[in-house]
Parts: sequence; C-alpha cells; structure tokens
Amino acid sequence: MEKRIFLFDGKAKQLYTTDDPSLVVILYKDDVSAYNGIKKSSIQNKGILNNKISEIIYKTLEENGIKTHFVKRLDDRAQLCKKISVFPLEFIVRNVIAGSLARRLDMEEGFRPCNTIFEICLKSDFLNDPLINEHHAVALNIISYEELQKIYHFSIKTNQIVTKLFDDAGIDVIDMKLEFGYDEEHNLLLADEISPDTARFWDKETKNKLDRDRFKRDMGKIEESYFEILKRLTT
Amino acid sequence: MEKRIFLFDGKAKQLYTTDDPSLVVILYKDDVSAYNGIKKSSIQNKGILNNKISEIIYKTLEENGIKTHFVKRLDDRAQLCKKISVFPLEFIVRNVIAGSLARRLDMEEGFRPCNTIFEICLKSDFLNDPLINEHHAVALNIISYEELQKIYHFSIKTNQIVTKLFDDAGIDVIDMKLEFGYDEEHNLLLADEISPDTARFWDKETKNKLDRDRFKRDMGKIEESYFEILKRLTT
Repeated sequence: MEKRIFLFDGKAKQLYTTDDPSLVVILYKDDVSAYNGIKKSSIQNKGILNNKISEIIYKTLEENGIKTHFVKRLDDRAQLCKKISVFPLEFIVRNVIAGSLARRLDMEEGFRPCNTIFEICLKSDFLNDPLINEHHAVALNIISYEELQKIYHFSIKTNQIVTKLFDDAGIDVIDMKLEFGYDEEHNLLLADEISPDTARFWDKETKNKLDRDRFKRDMGKIEESYFEILKRLTT
Repeated sequence: MEKRIFLFDGKAKQLYTTDDPSLVVILYKDDVSAYNGIKKSSIQNKGILNNKISEIIYKTLEENGIKTHFVKRLDDRAQLCKKISVFPLEFIVRNVIAGSLARRLDMEEGFRPCNTIFEICLKSDFLNDPLINEHHAVALNIISYEELQKIYHFSIKTNQIVTKLFDDAGIDVIDMKLEFGYDEEHNLLLADEISPDTARFWDKETKNKLDRDRFKRDMGKIEESYFEILKRLTT
C-alpha cells in the first residue's frame, strides 16, 4: 500500500491518502509540542517509538474486542489505518489525578480516586481545548447522547485493557486521551494513537514519569523513557 | 418563630438560628456582587424583591411536587427555611446560551440549543467556582453518582415548572443556578434561592435582560427590572 497524496500535517503526525480511498497512511513525526503549541521541539526517534508503542496497544485492543482504525504498521514511522471522520472532541480517561486536573481541583498529583474520571474537551486551538460536558457537546450539534454513551463504554473498556497491558509491564496508566470517529461504513472506531505523547505512564515502583510530561516539565531523558516503555511492552 | 443567633453572612443573604434546631431564618440583603466578589455594590430594595420572587417560585415548586427548604416568608426580608447541609456544588440549568458559556464555547448569546444543558461547578472562591463534571464531583468525595442522578432529575423538573411560571408572565428563563442538600431527616431538598440574582430572565418580546447581568454589565435600571419580574408574577 503506497502512500500517495499528502493530506494533513498535525502536531505529531502526518496523513497521506492511499490507492484505497477507505485507507490512509499515518506517519509519526519526531515533533513534540505542549501548551497549545507554545512550547515546541523535536525528540529523536520519538516517531519510531510511538508508532511501535501504539501498534502494540491497538493490536491488544483489537484482540480484546475494541474496534479501532489501525490496520497494520508499514515501516518504522508509518501505519496503515482506516480513514476516519473524527469527532472534534478529546475523550480523557483518568485513573490517577495529574496535570491540568490537579490544578483545576487543587488536588495532589498522584491521588487515586475511588472512581474512574471521564472528561470531554472540545478540540479548538482558538478556545484552548476547553473542558466541556456531554450536554455542551450535544448543544454544539457535534454528537448525540446515544453516541456519547457508546463512547463512554468503549473508553472504560479501552482503559481496562490498556491498564492490564501496562500493569504487566510494571507501568501505571495515569490517564489517556482517546479520539473516536466513523469509518466509511459508519462503524464507530477508536482513532488516533495511544502513546506517551497522549497518555501519562508512571513506573509502578519508582513513580518515574515515562511520558510527555518529561518534555513539558523539562525533566530530560525523554527518548530513553519512551524507549523504556517499548522495551517493557515487548519483553 | 424568632431569629436568634447570627450564623453566617453570605454575599446576598444572612443566616440565623431559630428556637427550633431544624429551622433557620434567611435574611435577604441588598448587597450585590459579581466576578467572585471583585465587583460589589448595593441595590435598593433588592433583598425585599428577591425574597418575594423566590417565595412565589418555591411555593409553585412545592405545589408541583418539588421538595424544597422553603417553609414560609416571615416579613419583607426574612424567610423561614429548613436547615440544610448543602453540597458545595452549583447545579446550573441552561435553556439558552448566555454569559460564561457563550464565552467558553464561542457561541452567540441568545442561541437556544436542541437540548437542555446541565452543568456542575465546584463552589470554591479560591478556585473561582470551576466547571467540573459528575466524575470530578464523585472523585472529590462530595457526592455519589446516585445522588447526582436524583439531582439531575430534580433540576430538569424544576426547570420545567419555573419555565412554565415565567412563560405565563411573558419572561424567558435563560438559565438558573440551583443548590441542593439534606435536611435533618436526610431528605434531599432544593435549597438556596431562585431569583434574578441566581438566574437569567429575559423579556419574551423585547429580549430585555431583567436580572443581575444588568449590574454585571453596567446596564442600569436594576431595581426596576427586579420589580418588573415581581409585578408580572403577581398579576
């Protein structure tokens, strides 16, 4: 499957058409950004590592009954995926308080609440991806209550599967951002990626951060941390 | 029922004990504030008008099956109410986009979405009453999912009743803030007030604002607008 026409340049990925209109090639870049693009840099080999980490996660999800856009990895940086019309919403699942939520609620980072926290953010660079709720999303005519309910159940199951996969590798899944959309046959699928760019992963023992927070907070050893995740998931 | 010991001084109301430990006296003040207390003033007779407006609304709610803390109006400024342990949450019901939500979603003020919008804010002057969702409220150990579900149904019914009452008076209910809590016998009750201080009311014909936005936005004729509401509800 050859990639053909360049479609879209995202913050961390590029999208290309293929000779099958229902499939696209996603190319993982080394670019990294934070705070709505204010902080930018490049991390050597990040694209290669995230491509392989996301491949392992999406294969595991598919094996456990979650329908995703992932078809197969093509090479070090490229994935073949189903073409998806994605909701302009970020669905965030949180097992442990961290990041923006710790600031919003004045809670300690690392606190594990009794329940799983589910959030919706509106994807809008102009509005700075604000936290919204299901009623706002419906009022904006983006999605229906029924679709939100399906996505909620998908997200809870995805979280369980990813948490089990990482638990076996000695890593806590703190939170993750999910995106959903429809393929050409109107199947609701998990899209995008799950990687240290879009989720928080902490070493179970040391509580060391193994994710993009190392870039956001100038902690160094970013490539090494991403590589550590890939190594643990493959051994 | 004599008011006895001063308990609490709020932004717009004062609370007093009575000789019955299950009852309190709520005194409506003329003080008005906005933007987390940054903007403050006093509106002549506001306390008297809100006391009477809220009395009419809470009596109508009780007649239509909503359990509230309201017992009776004692005089121009005072109400006898059940003593309530209130959740530190604001429950906002929106029929029409206005105020902070218009800014948050970059939507036009006055747009009426297809659904009723329900929001939860954490009451915290320190955090500036942030928008949260049901999962955050449960994670904070403030409330259970079951209680939130009950409050959601209470709020929807309250909105229907208040909307009908005001519709008959030629006024659109744009949005309103509700508070809930438990009385001494653990009955879940609607607490606080519903008034032009805590809800948005627009004239159906002229779309003139008849609420606290007149103070927030320096539009003048505040006392006249509150009086207009009371007049229309009583004739």
